[in-house]
Amino acid sequence: MTFLLSLSRTDNHARTGIVSTAHGDIRTPAFMPVGTAGTVKGMLPESVRATGADILLGNTYHLMLRPGAEVVAKLGGLHGFMHWDRPILTDSGGFQVMSLSKLRKITEEGVTFQSHIDGSTHMLTPERAMEIQHMLGSDITMALDECTPFPATQEQTRDSMRLSMRWAARCRDAFVPRAGHALFGIVQGGVFPELRAESVAALTSIGFDGYAVGGLAVGEGQEAMFAVLDVTMPLMPQDKPRYLMGVGKPSDIVGAVLRGVDMFDCVIPTRSARFGRAYTSQGEVNIKNARHTQDAAPLDAACTCPCCAHYSRAYLHHLFKADEMLGPILMTWHNLHYYQTLMQSIRDAIEEGRYGAFARAFVEPQEAE
Amino acid sequence: MTFLLSLSRTDNHARTGIVSTAHGDIRTPAFMPVGTAGTVKGMLPESVRATGADILLGNTYHLMLRPGAEVVAKLGGLHGFMHWDRPILTDSGGFQVMSLSKLRKITEEGVTFQSHIDGSTHMLTPERAMEIQHMLGSDITMALDECTPFPATQEQTRDSMRLSMRWAARCRDAFVPRAGHALFGIVQGGVFPELRAESVAALTSIGFDGYAVGGLAVGEGQEAMFAVLDVTMPLMPQDKPRYLMGVGKPSDIVGAVLRGVDMFDCVIPTRSARFGRAYTSQGEVNIKNARHTQDAAPLDAACTCPCCAHYSRAYLHHLFKADEMLGPILMTWHNLHYYQTLMQSIRDAIEEGRYGAFARAFVEPQEAE
Repeated sequence: MTFLLSLSRTDNHARTGIVSTAHGDIRTPAFMPVGTAGTVKGMLPESVRATGADILLGNTYHLMLRPGAEVVAKLGGLHGFMHWDRPILTDSGGFQVMSLSKLRKITEEGVTFQSHIDGSTHMLTPERAMEIQHMLGSDITMALDECTPFPATQEQTRDSMRLSMRWAARCRDAFVPRAGHALFGIVQGGVFPELRAESVAALTSIGFDGYAVGGLAVGEGQEAMFAVLDVTMPLMPQDKPRYLMGVGKPSDIVGAVLRGVDMFDCVIPTRSARFGRAYTSQGEVNIKNARHTQDAAPLDAACTCPCCAHYSRAYLHHLFKADEMLGPILMTWHNLHYYQTLMQSIRDAIEEGRYGAFARAFVEPQEAE
Repeated sequence: MTFLLSLSRTDNHARTGIVSTAHGDIRTPAFMPVGTAGTVKGMLPESVRATGADILLGNTYHLMLRPGAEVVAKLGGLHGFMHWDRPILTDSGGFQVMSLSKLRKITEEGVTFQSHIDGSTHMLTPERAMEIQHMLGSDITMALDECTPFPATQEQTRDSMRLSMRWAARCRDAFVPRAGHALFGIVQGGVFPELRAESVAALTSIGFDGYAVGGLAVGEGQEAMFAVLDVTMPLMPQDKPRYLMGVGKPSDIVGAVLRGVDMFDCVIPTRSARFGRAYTSQGEVNIKNARHTQDAAPLDAACTCPCCAHYSRAYLHHLFKADEMLGPILMTWHNLHYYQTLMQSIRDAIEEGRYGAFARAFVEPQEAE
């Protein structure tokens, strides 16, 4: 079993393919639901699979703190622990250290931080990030990077990116190659084209099994994000998977695929579902809105997910008003189904050579109320 | 479709049968999971069915306050609203008015109370209780009774019981008979044998499709409860279903079946699951206990539910520590499976004429830690 991207079809910069891993194939462009703490919140793994997901994302930061990578390893790795036998990508923890932990101190060696759970002190180095992800059993391991703050000056961004590149080389050295398992490098450089180019050159000279674009979707806006992709994507190897981290809204994904991205992850569909917000073919719906109190219609009449097949908006509204778990459960199922259906539509459009028209016609779901 | 109890086999006082309703058959002795607000917390209806449940219980009190019986009626009744196409029993609301609402005032006419949700004032009369349950579409409607406080003097208990009997007659008059739909009367009388006998006589002279025993499991203890059943059950009609309301622990159910009870409901399996407590073949388990942190064993090696088939105690422990919804979801599934498996074992033992030995050998699951 070799980790491999087999391209199926390209349509200008957009492309479809299959990424083969130790735990099976991933159809690309792919959306990875986020299973932060070893569970996609409120979903059984077989339900996540039923939405069409080929791969999940797990969070190194959360799992190293609780229950601990050694515990997960003892219990069959993340696959066995959470009962998901398909591919798993784990992030390196760098982003969450910056966004969640306290009292961070970054040195050449790595990052020292305090757990947001119990205040205990931990250190994450490139070598430890590789060791942890190895214990988790990740199919796709991410290099440790520094999440550059936004906004940042060009000098700050350059220094941060170069530190991440030195860490990337240490990750490559520390990563234990195994059949069907991959290590991805992460391109940094903020919104500065020359720094992005320098980062791509640094990573490709080290050599990775795939390349991620990091440091986006941090507040720069869609236009700036697409501008970075416009200058970065043409520099990245054609024959390796390209992963845009933490993105995004449906229109972000559509636009990024147009620019050659193969893989995505984002908490938007799952998190917004828990707050009662759904993506539908008719726009975004806030199910807590009083207008749904007696609405016998499904969330999305065009949707075939169990939530839309069996339940009314009035029932979903009631579940949220009564603070019943089934509300977030059903809405999460729907939003993940919406995202996976979007990815299938994207793949179909590319396969049929009409992706440019598809992307131009795509309209971000707007709240209808 | 006639509402009917077909007795299959009796073994001393214990009996198996089939209760036929407009929405299908109920195998008795039966345990009814509680779906208070139109959902068994954390469970899809098809998952509840997969545990072996033939019938659910819905709460009139909760549903009349939110979303309102008229709303549920408009949305297909409780069956359509919550996507459960099998039998539903609804309580009359009397118990919850006493235990949840504020500023109650009981008169001959009915009970006036303030909603625990928004403080709004409502009145529940025998006639309104019938109307609400009719709008909910209940297969089995319960008469409105006063939940006698415990402890109470014999005089208080007598006066309360007699009020409930007058209300029962008004319920019988107000109930709209429909094929396959039933009205059950509720025997009251506290721990006083002569009052229980008077109550049974009053109800049977009115005539109901089934008879419930109310006012137990309110703090009197198992011994006192069984003592009431010992004097009450022989007085109740043989050819109608007998329902012990709000009961109970596994050993309560086993002992009540021995005394001739056919139907049960209780929040114990679902509520305790949400607090991390499971019933297993090896005793009661508190999954939050630190001893489970690295335990690769399933919750119950003898159990075939999805929770026990696919997940370790260590994973369940992790889910509860991380406050993940999937913890209560999986534990609820397990506990409902345990209860339904217990009911099947009870039915099998009765069918095979060995229920006395089964009940004597049954040991209440004890916490193993």
